[in-house]
Amino acid sequence: MNTIDINLIKTYLINLQNQICHEFETTDGKATFQHDSWQRLDGGGGDTRVITNGDVFEKGGVNFSHVHGEKLPISATTQRPELADCEFDALGVSIVMHADNPFVPTSHANIRFFQAKNPSGETIWWFGGGYDLTPYYGFKEDCKYWHQTAKNACDPFGKEVYASYKKWCDDYFYLKHRQEARGIGGLFFDDLNQWNFQTCFAFMQAIGNSYLKAYLPIVEKRKATPFTETHKIFQRIRRGRYVEFNLVYDRGTLFGLQSGGRTESILMSLPPEVIWQYDYAPEPDSDEAKLLTDFLPARDWLSA
Amino acid sequence: MNTIDINLIKTYLINLQNQICHEFETTDGKATFQHDSWQRLDGGGGDTRVITNGDVFEKGGVNFSHVHGEKLPISATTQRPELADCEFDALGVSIVMHADNPFVPTSHANIRFFQAKNPSGETIWWFGGGYDLTPYYGFKEDCKYWHQTAKNACDPFGKEVYASYKKWCDDYFYLKHRQEARGIGGLFFDDLNQWNFQTCFAFMQAIGNSYLKAYLPIVEKRKATPFTETHKIFQRIRRGRYVEFNLVYDRGTLFGLQSGGRTESILMSLPPEVIWQYDYAPEPDSDEAKLLTDFLPARDWLSA
Repeated sequence: MNTIDINLIKTYLINLQNQICHEFETTDGKATFQHDSWQRLDGGGGDTRVITNGDVFEKGGVNFSHVHGEKLPISATTQRPELADCEFDALGVSIVMHADNPFVPTSHANIRFFQAKNPSGETIWWFGGGYDLTPYYGFKEDCKYWHQTAKNACDPFGKEVYASYKKWCDDYFYLKHRQEARGIGGLFFDDLNQWNFQTCFAFMQAIGNSYLKAYLPIVEKRKATPFTETHKIFQRIRRGRYVEFNLVYDRGTLFGLQSGGRTESILMSLPPEVIWQYDYAPEPDSDEAKLLTDFLPARDWLSA
Repeated sequence: MNTIDINLIKTYLINLQNQICHEFETTDGKATFQHDSWQRLDGGGGDTRVITNGDVFEKGGVNFSHVHGEKLPISATTQRPELADCEFDALGVSIVMHADNPFVPTSHANIRFFQAKNPSGETIWWFGGGYDLTPYYGFKEDCKYWHQTAKNACDPFGKEVYASYKKWCDDYFYLKHRQEARGIGGLFFDDLNQWNFQTCFAFMQAIGNSYLKAYLPIVEKRKATPFTETHKIFQRIRRGRYVEFNLVYDRGTLFGLQSGGRTESILMSLPPEVIWQYDYAPEPDSDEAKLLTDFLPARDWLSA
């Protein structure tokens, strides 16, 4: 294989960030993204874009970062001791959008590339990413649409790809201590290098390009749904689960915090307002209860 | 040494729990503690007591638990591989009190006993615990009083005890990713077995018995301070830091979640309402800014 041109990936990611921010601003109609460029002491930096208090989006971030250094942080090498003394490049775009309207689900997307060079000059690389949806009030048609769009993006790369990355997503975004999924899933992949570089890169782009296609129609459909304070309270309680997942389990968050990433950029994923009520349980058979019984348990949405 | 009578420790802890709940109910004047007994599938259980929406306390918990089992969870053995196949008993009382009034600090206290028996019958035991204070608006006299009470409890056990456990507390309750202390500290100790069992147990009791003495006068002094929505918002933002600490760093929380403890009992420590505002910074020279400049950085409060 020829040397990998990281700038090619970087250019794609920055263009994607611009396009996504532009589309979200159009959808919101009021708020715009605040831009914050930052440098990392040990190498690299990023461009954090955050939207707050919009007509549609209560809080959201679309972040680009490119972090590099002489030595990987611990969180990246416990599972892979062979990377312990490697130079590395990690670049990606990471998105979390929390809408104000409780009928609009929160969405998360991430695409990333990782490359490490060990002292003998050998290069190891892989892609990772995916997207997943976290509704507060479930709609079967939205779940089907979200997963169908994910499948359409995967299918050109092999008929088994969607099913396998859908399962990985269900397994990954799972709160063991609650025995509960974070949301209704989507796609998750990591360590992707089994195809050639061009195909892997094309797959990452297919995921990046299909995220807005999957999410925006759902936002548009639900953003004007009337809601009450009761709906908001349920949304804030559920957002507590989102915090629990990100701070206890999420590898990206832990990698970021440990590698000296910019804390405010990493934690932009945390919801704007959260409630922890002791031993909360929704009324049986309520819409709130149905989220837990009919939407969060992992299932095949395309035959649902 | 004679065999350790765990029931002696258990009786002390349960009495302490009762006394503390009683005192907090008296201070609150309106809300009472809800009791939830729970069993752990693999052995043991607990008695969770939670107070919510009181006149003084927005949310608080005073929990007793006694967990035992055939094999320790991973979080307890990574640092101590010699404990990997040990039977164990872990018992303790754990307290977190979040007041409604932003001028009343949050307090946390914990005392615990741990015992493990390895397959050859050898017994390893230690005590741990401490208490720490997390103000939103700082008052020098409260910090001095809190630390003086802690010192008074420690002094009979050696002149160096307070200083050493005060430093351990500062080191432990620290958010690396924020480069910020969680609060103004207090005491933290773990692995305590260097004195004989009776003395270690007496020390744990001295800490347990002095917690209310340290906290209640501060609650009484501040609970009627007038406050505005601006104060509440700052309190909720700071409570986000509390969540970050507990979910990212706190060993007790991770041990509890991994050992199949009751999730709602463990996470009762999380504040009732939390705000994450992107890149929030208080106005320079405001009372909010002073918390960060004049109170959180570790210092010797007794000569302040």
